[in-house]
Amino acid sequence: MRAVRVHEYGEPPTLDDVPDAGIEDPLDVLVRVDAAGVCRTDLHIIEGQWAEKSGVELPYIIGHENAGTVVEVGSAVSTVAPGDTVILHPLVTCGLCRACREGDDVHCTNSRFPGIDCDGGMAELLRTSVRSVVTLDDGLAPAEVAALADAGLTAYHAVRKAAPLLYPGSQVVMIGAGGLGHIGLQVLAALTPAEITVVDRSAEVLERASELGAHHVVRSDGTQVEQVLDNTKGLGAQVVLDFVGESGTEADGVRMTRDAGSYFVIGYGGRVDVPTIDFVSREINVIGNLVGSYNDLAELMTLTAHGKVRLATKDYPFEQAITALDDLDAGRIPGGRAILSR
Amino acid sequence: MRAVRVHEYGEPPTLDDVPDAGIEDPLDVLVRVDAAGVCRTDLHIIEGQWAEKSGVELPYIIGHENAGTVVEVGSAVSTVAPGDTVILHPLVTCGLCRACREGDDVHCTNSRFPGIDCDGGMAELLRTSVRSVVTLDDGLAPAEVAALADAGLTAYHAVRKAAPLLYPGSQVVMIGAGGLGHIGLQVLAALTPAEITVVDRSAEVLERASELGAHHVVRSDGTQVEQVLDNTKGLGAQVVLDFVGESGTEADGVRMTRDAGSYFVIGYGGRVDVPTIDFVSREINVIGNLVGSYNDLAELMTLTAHGKVRLATKDYPFEQAITALDDLDAGRIPGGRAILSR
Amino acid sequence: MRAVRVHEYGEPPTLDDVPDAGIEDPLDVLVRVDAAGVCRTDLHIIEGQWAEKSGVELPYIIGHENAGTVVEVGSAVSTVAPGDTVILHPLVTCGLCRACREGDDVHCTNSRFPGIDCDGGMAELLRTSVRSVVTLDDGLAPAEVAALADAGLTAYHAVRKAAPLLYPGSQVVMIGAGGLGHIGLQVLAALTPAEITVVDRSAEVLERASELGAHHVVRSDGTQVEQVLDNTKGLGAQVVLDFVGESGTEADGVRMTRDAGSYFVIGYGGRVDVPTIDFVSREINVIGNLVGSYNDLAELMTLTAHGKVRLATKDYPFEQAITALDDLDAGRIPGGRAILSR
Amino acid sequence: MRAVRVHEYGEPPTLDDVPDAGIEDPLDVLVRVDAAGVCRTDLHIIEGQWAEKSGVELPYIIGHENAGTVVEVGSAVSTVAPGDTVILHPLVTCGLCRACREGDDVHCTNSRFPGIDCDGGMAELLRTSVRSVVTLDDGLAPAEVAALADAGLTAYHAVRKAAPLLYPGSQVVMIGAGGLGHIGLQVLAALTPAEITVVDRSAEVLERASELGAHHVVRSDGTQVEQVLDNTKGLGAQVVLDFVGESGTEADGVRMTRDAGSYFVIGYGGRVDVPTIDFVSREINVIGNLVGSYNDLAELMTLTAHGKVRLATKDYPFEQAITALDDLDAGRIPGGRAILSR
Repeated sequence: MRAVRVHEYGEPPTLDDVPDAGIEDPLDVLVRVDAAGVCRTDLHIIEGQWAEKSGVELPYIIGHENAGTVVEVGSAVSTVAPGDTVILHPLVTCGLCRACREGDDVHCTNSRFPGIDCDGGMAELLRTSVRSVVTLDDGLAPAEVAALADAGLTAYHAVRKAAPLLYPGSQVVMIGAGGLGHIGLQVLAALTPAEITVVDRSAEVLERASELGAHHVVRSDGTQVEQVLDNTKGLGAQVVLDFVGESGTEADGVRMTRDAGSYFVIGYGGRVDVPTIDFVSREINVIGNLVGSYNDLAELMTLTAHGKVRLATKDYPFEQAITALDDLDAGRIPGGRAILSR
Repeated sequence: MRAVRVHEYGEPPTLDDVPDAGIEDPLDVLVRVDAAGVCRTDLHIIEGQWAEKSGVELPYIIGHENAGTVVEVGSAVSTVAPGDTVILHPLVTCGLCRACREGDDVHCTNSRFPGIDCDGGMAELLRTSVRSVVTLDDGLAPAEVAALADAGLTAYHAVRKAAPLLYPGSQVVMIGAGGLGHIGLQVLAALTPAEITVVDRSAEVLERASELGAHHVVRSDGTQVEQVLDNTKGLGAQVVLDFVGESGTEADGVRMTRDAGSYFVIGYGGRVDVPTIDFVSREINVIGNLVGSYNDLAELMTLTAHGKVRLATKDYPFEQAITALDDLDAGRIPGGRAILSR
Repeated sequence: MRAVRVHEYGEPPTLDDVPDAGIEDPLDVLVRVDAAGVCRTDLHIIEGQWAEKSGVELPYIIGHENAGTVVEVGSAVSTVAPGDTVILHPLVTCGLCRACREGDDVHCTNSRFPGIDCDGGMAELLRTSVRSVVTLDDGLAPAEVAALADAGLTAYHAVRKAAPLLYPGSQVVMIGAGGLGHIGLQVLAALTPAEITVVDRSAEVLERASELGAHHVVRSDGTQVEQVLDNTKGLGAQVVLDFVGESGTEADGVRMTRDAGSYFVIGYGGRVDVPTIDFVSREINVIGNLVGSYNDLAELMTLTAHGKVRLATKDYPFEQAITALDDLDAGRIPGGRAILSR
Repeated sequence: MRAVRVHEYGEPPTLDDVPDAGIEDPLDVLVRVDAAGVCRTDLHIIEGQWAEKSGVELPYIIGHENAGTVVEVGSAVSTVAPGDTVILHPLVTCGLCRACREGDDVHCTNSRFPGIDCDGGMAELLRTSVRSVVTLDDGLAPAEVAALADAGLTAYHAVRKAAPLLYPGSQVVMIGAGGLGHIGLQVLAALTPAEITVVDRSAEVLERASELGAHHVVRSDGTQVEQVLDNTKGLGAQVVLDFVGESGTEADGVRMTRDAGSYFVIGYGGRVDVPTIDFVSREINVIGNLVGSYNDLAELMTLTAHGKVRLATKDYPFEQAITALDDLDAGRIPGGRAILSR
């Protein structure tokens, strides 16, 4: 099969002919990848930023946002069958540890992450586990949803955790409404009755945010914290969701958080640096967020099937994978996600 | 009446003769202060650290850990009567804002804090509100419980918030088992089935911690993080309660926290400085904690009446208040709390 | 002032001239009642069904759904002032008991209920407490919202309790979408992403339910349980909200509830009669619901101000109060609520 | 192997020679049953009460409370190995449905229940799944814990669900402190700070309850409801746990429940029959309870290893299984559980 492989960090990946992936274990599911999202994390992998953390042996196949069609199943698999269209939870988890059993499978103590630490989905075939496949509703096509497998799931998970804190009359601020953020915004509008303020540097992004359900938009021009405080009687918001997590949004986010409120870190790159006295005198929380669970992904697919989440994507034929990666790197896919499809 | 007043920041307070406090509003309660806790915060106030934050006008009476006997009540008060022995919630709250109505009265939007931003309890009489008095069980004497009004309440509140995260088999680490910490430890043992590790620099404190219910004790000697990780299969604890919050415990606490776990900030003085990538890749939380609610204080009094919380205190006659403050400042009250009583 | 008073149970009330209500206590608020809802409970009071339970002394003024304008406040009131338009939480609560302090003021251990156990709001003036007034947003008129004070609040409270159980892909069934139900339906649509099925005997009610956000409607014709089960793969719904609570809906509701699900009782008149083995083998819950808290009412006002809850009402001049009660009793206000306004 | 099989409902089971159980699927685990609890449900099965519900084909092997030693594992099993001592979660669950993934595996949509609907553990060997084995701490012997696999788990699960409702100063009533109840009582004392009242008909049971941590005991002599109300200022308890569920405890339990409180049904045989008006005016809940999850069982094993749960058992050699069943039926194992061991 054809596959996008990284041979050396710092060098562009290549489209190679490799042996077909196949079933190895009784719970395996072999999927034809009809659509694979191209993600900024792929660029970071290629640059070598994940080398130490993943420990993966080169060459290997990247691609961690996958949807497609089941082509073969292991001997112990009965819940999906060849021909089913599916989206793949990005992790392959054990199902046996406490975390897996209590709905927190992202913290499985025995998982692998195809496309990160073993062969991924930028290929014709991908081997995953029956635990990772979410069957798609008839109305959903793989190319429409592939980018929800990781980026969308991450946004969904954070918003889902924040939702119980948000009641009619409460305030939520989203910093960044780009790739992940514009999904998070739609999820916020679908799951909560809160008043939503979106903060972003781009007027274009803010315009789209208004269309997607933001009640207020604030341009990041140096006065964004003051604007948010002004709009919230000087108190800030019960919840701040930071989809950027660098370049100063960390400090902004903490300041925009109301006393007794919570600042959710979703994007990364910077640092949270806060005096302990502030955690005490203001009783604020900083909440971490990592991808999302299988059940989260199933719920997100339901919202999507109901038309409540729409994704801006740009499609590339699979054979143009390298071009798609280049375009992403060069900023030629503004506000959207590249999808490799066949 | 006699009262301990601060006249100038940086100067020792003096014992003055001042006009008696009295009832001013229909919901007021006038309390004879039978016991007043002497707290490190009092030293900070005297040094001027709270000058800007409290905005209080000098001279004023300090003392924010108070228990005593009701001597007079306002016209609209019917739930307590002269002669009742009471402990005082440290804040005087409005009862009308959303926070007060939902059990989070510490975040009352219209509160005052006697001893911090208005006259406090190191005096014969203290004016408070009916909303702030917790009637004491017959078996509890004011001098036994006064220090629970603020220090104990703070420890209780943090542990109470952490308790739902702690199940049989889970791990909790407490950093610091001194004044607040040794109360928190007893509350942990009373409210949760978790395995408790106490980390402290003092061998004496650790010995007492073992007697009070700690399952493991770890001396802070530079290897404390490794010891905690060793004891927890390299994973750390689901909950870390930091009663110190400075001098490196902040970084230690974050490292001791298990992925998906929570680090509770209770002590202060230092900084939490963590890369956003850690909040994401580890999905950890940093949880702020501020005093506790009225209901928290009532619950803590129940635990105390049931013999589950005992406090090491050193009593001083009220007229020796200045000596007590000096002793605290000079480290002559190790592991205990000074109480002014009459 | 003019007031609607019950003189003898079983006899129609009369419009009387009575002394003006006035401020009595420091926390009192005197309100000019601009709009008073007429409720089926008023009919039950007149019939004498509440005589023993309320213990009220006749004659007295009925009316427990009130909105209007503040005309005078007690000496200790500072959060509202004459001229403010307000809606009144139906209970006057103490603010001091554990329930009041933890957001469950409906279970205040020291409350009164104007219009039920003391003089109510079908009069020019009503004495209430500062704890019971919710200031109205500029866009809301008393006549538009009065019926939300009790009926709407009850529906809101039940849905708010159910909301955490409802995720994308979950099922909720509402039995009855009349007076309370059609409000509950709008709240469901505003607060949750669940798939909503409405069951009712009236085709007209079902038609309106579809317009208000129901995804499925089921006519109660004897096959309603089977229809609901058919629509839910034989499993039933995670949540069933029963706004009727009599005439067989109790047994229907339990059968429509999925294993591990919850049946919420809101309407009443009948009995829940279920073998204990069913609670065990199916692990279902029956959840009681009583009015709602002050914070619930404030949230409902926010939803209403945002245009998410609209109420079908029929207005009567205050002097036609007796006619309004007659019309309600005779079924001449189908699907709507009568409002007395001036 | 030797096994206890039911051949015909209404007839005593017999000890038969049957073919050895063996591994069939990749996730199977074959366990030598070192200890099997004898439970009242076994008697009900023999009488035929479960015939229709289980649909099992006769003859088959009973026994659903099992602990023992792993002797062989399927090809996909890596978390346990021959020689490990284990206790078995009573259900064999799929691990793939939403319930399994969110910690509610008892409601697995694709489970089987060895000893109920397929061959169980009153035999030398039992085939189960890797998902169902909890590895025992070194200090725990199969014979000590076998009865916790179902009876103990059921008690644990109910108390664990109730625990968040119980704070210092709150009241919990347990009706029945026999087999399940005396385990529940120990779990209550380990997990909560609540004041515990035990109600039972037997003076002997009440005496043991006092030793195990009950703060109050009440003899069921017709005045038990009044006694509980008297002890709780007429209010009743926030939580009532009914381990009987028949013979009038249902009505007692509801009456003993405080307004806004919850009545937990654990035992069965009778009916809950309550007017809907009571669910509304008192806002009480009736909470169902069914066995417990795998994580519950793991937690219970931790509590047991820590010495917080002790079980009164009576041991029988495996070959005397029929005698053990007879003794249980004849009431010759008062307050204890029969265990078949080898």
